Parts: sequence; C-alpha cells; structure tokens
Amino acid sequence: MAFKTDIEIAREAKKKPIQEIGAKLGISSDDLLPYGHDKAKVSQSFINSVQDRKDGKLILVTAINPTPAGEGKTTTTVGLGDGLNRIGKNACVCIREASLGPNFGMKGGAAGGGYAQVVPMEEMNLHFTGDFHAITSAHNLLSAMIDNHIYWGNALEIDTRRVVWRRVVDMNDRALRTITASLGGVSNGFPREAGFDITVASEVMAILCLAKNLEDLQERLGSMIVAHRRDRSPVYCRDIKADGAMTVLLKDAMQPNIVQTLENNPAFVHGGPFANIAHGCNSVIATTTALKLADYVVTEAGFGADLGAEKFLNIKCRKAGLTPSVVVVVATVRAMKMNGGVAKADLGDENVAAVEKGCANLGRHVENVKSFGVPVVVAINHFVTDTDAEVQAIKDFVAAQGAEAVLSRHWELGSEGSAELATRVAEIADADMANFAPIYPDDMPLFQKIEAIAKRIYRADDVLADQKIRNQLKDWEAQGYGHLPVCMAKTQYSFTTDPDRRGAPVGFSVPVREVRLSAGAGFVVVICGEIMTMPGLPRVPSAENIKLNADGDVEGLF
Amino acid sequence: MAFKTDIEIAREAKKKPIQEIGAKLGISSDDLLPYGHDKAKVSQSFINSVQDRKDGKLILVTAINPTPAGEGKTTTTVGLGDGLNRIGKNACVCIREASLGPNFGMKGGAAGGGYAQVVPMEEMNLHFTGDFHAITSAHNLLSAMIDNHIYWGNALEIDTRRVVWRRVVDMNDRALRTITASLGGVSNGFPREAGFDITVASEVMAILCLAKNLEDLQERLGSMIVAHRRDRSPVYCRDIKADGAMTVLLKDAMQPNIVQTLENNPAFVHGGPFANIAHGCNSVIATTTALKLADYVVTEAGFGADLGAEKFLNIKCRKAGLTPSVVVVVATVRAMKMNGGVAKADLGDENVAAVEKGCANLGRHVENVKSFGVPVVVAINHFVTDTDAEVQAIKDFVAAQGAEAVLSRHWELGSEGSAELATRVAEIADADMANFAPIYPDDMPLFQKIEAIAKRIYRADDVLADQKIRNQLKDWEAQGYGHLPVCMAKTQYSFTTDPDRRGAPVGFSVPVREVRLSAGAGFVVVICGEIMTMPGLPRVPSAENIKLNADGDVEGLF
Repeated sequence: MAFKTDIEIAREAKKKPIQEIGAKLGISSDDLLPYGHDKAKVSQSFINSVQDRKDGKLILVTAINPTPAGEGKTTTTVGLGDGLNRIGKNACVCIREASLGPNFGMKGGAAGGGYAQVVPMEEMNLHFTGDFHAITSAHNLLSAMIDNHIYWGNALEIDTRRVVWRRVVDMNDRALRTITASLGGVSNGFPREAGFDITVASEVMAILCLAKNLEDLQERLGSMIVAHRRDRSPVYCRDIKADGAMTVLLKDAMQPNIVQTLENNPAFVHGGPFANIAHGCNSVIATTTALKLADYVVTEAGFGADLGAEKFLNIKCRKAGLTPSVVVVVATVRAMKMNGGVAKADLGDENVAAVEKGCANLGRHVENVKSFGVPVVVAINHFVTDTDAEVQAIKDFVAAQGAEAVLSRHWELGSEGSAELATRVAEIADADMANFAPIYPDDMPLFQKIEAIAKRIYRADDVLADQKIRNQLKDWEAQGYGHLPVCMAKTQYSFTTDPDRRGAPVGFSVPVREVRLSAGAGFVVVICGEIMTMPGLPRVPSAENIKLNADGDVEGLF
Repeated sequence: MAFKTDIEIAREAKKKPIQEIGAKLGISSDDLLPYGHDKAKVSQSFINSVQDRKDGKLILVTAINPTPAGEGKTTTTVGLGDGLNRIGKNACVCIREASLGPNFGMKGGAAGGGYAQVVPMEEMNLHFTGDFHAITSAHNLLSAMIDNHIYWGNALEIDTRRVVWRRVVDMNDRALRTITASLGGVSNGFPREAGFDITVASEVMAILCLAKNLEDLQERLGSMIVAHRRDRSPVYCRDIKADGAMTVLLKDAMQPNIVQTLENNPAFVHGGPFANIAHGCNSVIATTTALKLADYVVTEAGFGADLGAEKFLNIKCRKAGLTPSVVVVVATVRAMKMNGGVAKADLGDENVAAVEKGCANLGRHVENVKSFGVPVVVAINHFVTDTDAEVQAIKDFVAAQGAEAVLSRHWELGSEGSAELATRVAEIADADMANFAPIYPDDMPLFQKIEAIAKRIYRADDVLADQKIRNQLKDWEAQGYGHLPVCMAKTQYSFTTDPDRRGAPVGFSVPVREVRLSAGAGFVVVICGEIMTMPGLPRVPSAENIKLNADGDVEGLF
C-alpha cells in the first residue's frame, strides 16, 4: 500500500479563504490582517476587545522522549484539534512557527503529517508572515546600538570584553559562531570578540512568546542584560535606549497568526523559541487569545515531557496564569520498542515484550505530568505496522498506572481517526479534574529549583555544580532574580544528560555546566551538556536540491 | 501659516481597501495577495496573463543634483501620478521601497511629502511586505553555503582569501564592515577575513530589480561571481548550487507591491537597489507590469539625472527594452539658489540673480537627457517662499533651451496643484516625440563606455585610471563581459567627483578608483570616490526616540 507524502497531501488541501476560518472563531474580516489568501494575523485591537470573555479548556500535548522512530506530537495536536471539531466542539490548535534556516540544512519540517496537517506548508517553512525576520531585526538593532554606543564614547562604561548580547541570523552558518568584529580601522570601532546565534535562540524570541501585550513586551525587552561593566554591574537594553524601537519592529510580529488544518479548522501558529535555552512553546498571546475564542485549545510543548511539559507547566503556565485541564502524552508502538531495546531496522516486526519493556519511559512521563495535578491521557499515534497485541500492551500498561491510553489514527484518517481520542479528552476536560500547581514555588532558592526538577522529573540522585555556579545563583538571588523559574537545557533524548540512555534510567547525576540569566524573558537557563545555539549545514545541504519546478511549486524543501 | 507634517497628513489619509485600488488597474481580488488591508502583492499568474497587452506610456521623473534645500523627486512623481488621474488619465506610479536599517539612524523617509504621498507610510518604512528580508535571507544562504563548501573539503578549490561574496544585514552596523569569521576552533571552519554590507547593496537586490521573471532571476543569481581560485578563475553561485534555493526564497519578493496615494490612486512600490554601486531604480517587473495595466506610468530614478537618469536610460531601459516617452526633470527655486551660491540660511530671500546663475546645473541635465532622444519637461516643485519673479526666471531659462518648465503645487494642493504639469506631460507623451537610444552601444569597449558617460554627461575632460584597472576591464572583455553596460558610483552632489562643486563645473577629470564585476546583475561597477556599502549610526541614533505611543502609533520614525 503506497501512502502519499505529506507535501502531496498538503498540496491537495481544499483550503478555504482565511476569512472563513477566522469567522469560525468569531473574528470578522476587519479584525484579520490577511497575508495572502490563506494566512492572517489577528489584530491587536480585536485581542484587546475579547479580554473579558471566559476562557476555554486548555489541553497540552506532550510526548515520551523523542526517538528516531518518530512520535508525531504535532500530528497528534492537529489530529486532536480536528477530532474535537468533528465531534461538534469549538476547538482550535496552537503550535509553533518553523525556523527558516534549518530547512536549508536538513529536510524541512512539515506542520503535522499525513491527514493531520496545518497548511500552507511551504509558506510556513519559508518567510510565513515575517515574524522571525522582525525578531532578527529587533535583535540586531540592539546589537548595532551597543557597538555604536561604545564607538561614540562608551558613556555607560561597558567592558567590551563583557558584551553578552550577540547577533542573530535565521540561517545555519557555523562561520559566524565566533568572529572578531569592528576590524578595519578607526572608523569601524573597537575590535572585540563577538558572534551570531540562530534567531530562534534569541532572548527576543523567548520574550515575544511570553509577553502578555505590547507594554509587557517593551518592559521585558528593556530588562534584558546586554553587557557588564568592569565592576560586573549589568548594562540593560533600556540603558542603550533600544527597547522602544525594538517594540516598534515587533508590533506586527506580536499579533498571532491564524491558518487552517486540512479539515479547515482554525490553527494559531505563532512563535518558536528554542526548547533548550528557552521554554519551547508557542506564544502566550496566541494561547490566551485562542482560549477566549474557542471552547477547547490544543497546544504542544517542545521535546519530551521531561523538558517540554515541565517548562510549559513550570514556566509558561506560571507566568501566563494558565491552567491545563488535561495533558495528552503521545507515544507510539515503534518508539516503545526502541525504548525497549529494538534497533530501528527491526521496528516492523511484532515484539510485545519490547513494547512492555519500553513502556517504562512512558510510565515515568505519565507519573511526572500527574504530579502537577493534571489528568493524563496517553495517545497511541497509530502506525501501519502496529499489531493489536502491541497496542493492547500499551493500553494495559497505562491502565495499570491509573490512566487511559487511546489509539488514534488521525495520520491515516484525519478526524475520523481521532474522534475517539477527542471524545475522551473532552470528557476529561469537561470533568474539571485538574488541580494544577507548578512543582516548585517562586520563593524556593534557584539551586533547589534545579534539584526539584532533576530529582522529581528526571529521577536523578543529585545535581552536580561547581562552587562558581552556586555562587552565581546566589548573586542573582541577591540582585532580586531569585523568584525566577529555571529553564533546563539538556538533551531531549533521555531523562539523563546522556542521549543514549533510553527507557527510565536510575542511578545518575545531573551535572550543571553553566548558568545564564535571561532577565527579560524571566528565567535562569541551566545548561547541562553541550548546547548548540548556531547549527551548521551538512556536507550536502538540502538547499542544493531546493528549487521551483515548472509548475512554480517548491521542490526539495520537504 | 502652519503646515501639517508629512506623517500627520499620512495618518489622516482616507485609505481605500487595497482590492479597490487594484480594481482601478483591472486586478481582481483573487490576483491580489493582500498584506493587511492596505498593501498587496500582484500575483505572478496575473502578471503572466497580461504579457500580450499593449504598453502604456513611460514617464521618468529625475532631478537636478541634490542639494540640502531638497528637490522633491518622489513627491513630484506621486503628484504627477495623481495629476494624471485627475485629468482623466489611467495612471500609476512606480517607486522604490525604503531600506529599514537607515531609519534607525537618521530620521526615516516618507514616500513623497505634503499632499503628494504614498501610504501606509509607517509600514513602508518598517518591514513592508518583507521583500528586503527575503533578499537578506537569500544573500546570506549563499554566504553560509560558500563557507560550508570550504568546511567540507573545498572541492571547488576556492582561495579563501578571494571570497568576494560578503554577508548582508538591513541595519546600519559599522562593527560588521570588517570581521574575521570562522574563529573558535575546528568545528567552526577556516578563519578568514569577511564582512557585511547593508542589504540594499546586495547584488541580489540589483538582480531582483532587473530580472524579467523567475527564470531570469535564477539564471542571473547563478551567474554571480562569489569567489576566485588561486589561478584567479571565478567560482559562480551556481557552482555552489545555491541559485535554486535562493530563487525559492525570493519567489514572493519578485511579485510587485501595490499601495495607494493619498488620493487613492494605485502605486507600485517595489525594489530599492543602491543608486551608486547599483542602478537605483524600482524593479523592472513592477514597471513592465504597470505598463500593461495603466496608460501612463510615472517612475523615478535615484539621485540627480547625471547618475539616476543616466543609469535608468543606459542600464534599465536597455536591459528591459523600455522606451520612455518623456522625462520630467525636477527643480526648485531654492535648489537653484543654492546652486547659484546662496547659503541655506538665506534661501528664504528673493534672489533672481542667484536663481539664474544656478540654472546652469538644471540646463546641463536638460541637455543631457535630451541627448538620449527623449523630450524633457522641467517641473518646478513649488515652495511657499518662491516669488513669481524667481519662478519666471527658471521658466525663461528653460524656454531658451527649447524645453518647457511648469510650476507644480502638488505638495500643497495635491492633484489640484499638479494638473497643469500632468496636462503638459500627457500631451508630450501622446505626441510620441521620443526617439530613444542609450548613449553608447553594447559593443563599445568598457573603458570607452566610462569615457562616454564622463565626457558626454558629466562634461569631464578625461577619465583617469591606473593600468591595473584598464587591464582588469580588458580581462573582463576577454572573458565575455565586454558587452555589459557600466554602472557609475560617484557622489550625487556634483557632476564631478567632488561633492562641493555645484552648478555646471568644467575643467575636471574623473578618477576611477576601482572596478567591480556584477556578473549576475549584468553591469560593471565603476567606483569614482569613497563609496560606503555599510553605513554607521550617528551619535544619537533616531532609534533612541522611536516608540509606540499610547494610541499604538509609531513615534519618532519620521
């Protein structure tokens, strides 16, 4: 049996004009700012006008630790949204935007897959509505203003060795990771070491995704630390007077984007911060707006539940005052087998024992999510090679945990395949069973917050950190940053910091290599392992094969 | 008498939905790709569908050498377009897009002024429809792929000291003019000297503005020279296999943007190449599309007629097969006085003698334009302090040259003030008096082309160039580039290379400092003097005062 590719299915989509999609959420044409016929931004004035409405139910989709077998978290998010609409609910999905640069390295990303996709796929993988370009511009304006300030006399007494604000580009360009800037003589400034990150790693991206509104955005931008003086005192973005102009550059980008699923249901696609050095969720403004417009909002968090759901619950929900009604943990039979020790080449063979063994990984994620006080449903994202016995093994395992697993066939069948999952999720959401709380309070010392996550979520024995790191955390507490949540940056492939340790490992420590303060975003980044903030291109970048074909369609991007 | 500022007038504009503006040119809603309610792109499929139509009349607006007094070339372009519509003609204007970066340095640019403006002004000075961001991405993708090629073994044997393809950013950032890239160890590549230009200086910008369609765009991108080998042989963009992906990144940017004047007449705003190292005109695709849709198309060229009109006629018209019906040379009484030796502070006082003396500059431009075989009308862009005697002095001077000068009050009165100018321009265009030809043939040797411009347009005695430069030109001729036009890069303030020599100087030489081959754009750049391709920010950048006010309007940008 031959399946169509994601892009083939996406190109066959019978898209409706975006005004019809907006109308499903009660947004009039005047309040939609169209970008072509199939994309739009929701106007800030409309968002302001719905603030007194009651919120819908928030549903988070997260997953087991990613494996090369694939889990289909976005696919399930989209499929569940379509399923809810199919059973008569007014539902909307909220997902992240794709970064442009990486599409020219490895194969580009779809937004979902099979018959559970968001369209227009090409444009979502290219410039879309320009949000990331706006972030790049705002970020680099600040960079230029810092060097310009130094050039014209450095009245703020910035230590040029301690400029922490780098530049960004939405491109995989390893040559820019470390540079010497301001070379070439007197008129070009004072030479210093500098470098570029990829745009999604910018603190501006994290801020755009956490800001409640434009005032909050400007306030947070102003609070970013850009450099230090010789006495180590911080220099803020607002000292450089860049926060106002950056806000102007970001005013359109702050308005959430609306597109549609293959089944013509509304989808917000807005923001895309890194899921390691940042919190990895779509924007707060998209989520809170969707909650005012839909009865059910299905959103997702980056990576596995140990990173993505943890940050969604401890950072995004805490800061935005959100309360999820139910959390869906996505698993697949194939991924359970990989967690159970099966090699990728053998995943097509039935192996119930391996499924049962691999369920340990799923089980820990389910337990963890429940510890936040929210009910859990496991979605088994169906794959054609799955056998009934394998599916049943997962269902039995989850039932033994006091939760429920539902098989969902949205990839193959769209909402027809996800109606059962949608029904159960809606029932649980409607039952108002959640009693949500973050797993650590604001006033816990920073190091204890790290320990709380490492021990209660990862199940580590302890956290290892040099005295220098512990002192840095104490310094920040003394400076008034102790109330911030922590943002863990570690491998997504394991509960540990070793990507090869699948399943549910025990008997390990979490070493902290570095801590960074994102004072504008409002979290302390805790780096446990090698984190790359500027990817490189592979030997044969996919860009070499990307082109327009004779029909004017994009080839090679997917 | 108090006048409103440009931004005040722009904010009071009664804009019509962009679909109504498109309808004036016969573009249906389906063929417009809206960006918000007041901007749109014209779809490529619609452009393809009108190729067999008859062309309208092309009217070029150019000017005397710019002075600090201001000439109002864009204002006159817009005013003339509105005037033509007022007298019952189907007319459209074609102007350039603004570069984002410089707006954060000095005060931002309006699109026209007074009651002859194009709106929405704020957005045209910010991200607009994202064209320049697309150019930045395409340019930097090629940059990343070049360093990536070197990193993975350098099969093309690029001499890393001879990579001529730099990077770009749409920001005034002097710290990036000269950098050392690929520092930081083995995984970041081979350290080499590199640097950034501002986006409008990219050859990709020049190509986007000269390409006839997407196929032509890709062909030209592929032909760009990005580096040389040790044996000096060129490495092309298509050797790096970046041309296909760059075309994909530029496919939306290639579709021209349509907005409206304050009087709700259609305006194409598309492309914005530098007017020194490039040709400084809006895109060929916008101009040729407008000619299929309107009976009269009013467009402008950068700087004064010695640079802008010369390149429009010798480069853009030659390459795109365009024939202007009439050229409007903009002058003002104040600028004539400055050319006649009056200081800026004294421009408010009547001084007929100075006007007469300054007319020498205008006279040479009129003569030059006529030498291309096109009729000339001088537009005297009215200013409130102008006296009747001063205006008459210009009219008399121009009449003695066998041309005609018309006073136009569009700045103050909109189309009511430009109706007379429009009437005369339309009469001359309709008379089909033009017998246009570029002033040098394709097959003239490159150095002789430089001499032709320097002697016939600037009125220089001779061209000075080292043997090295002359040899370089001969080498390019041997390589098959001898048929290209030359693109002069010199100061816009004078016919000479000395910005302080106003009027109509004689007895000077034009020294050529450097020549560069833009093999994709298709011209040889001839640099005569200091040309800055990456501006810096001033001591107090305007960005410090740009912000959103309580009404959500942008302040400080204008």
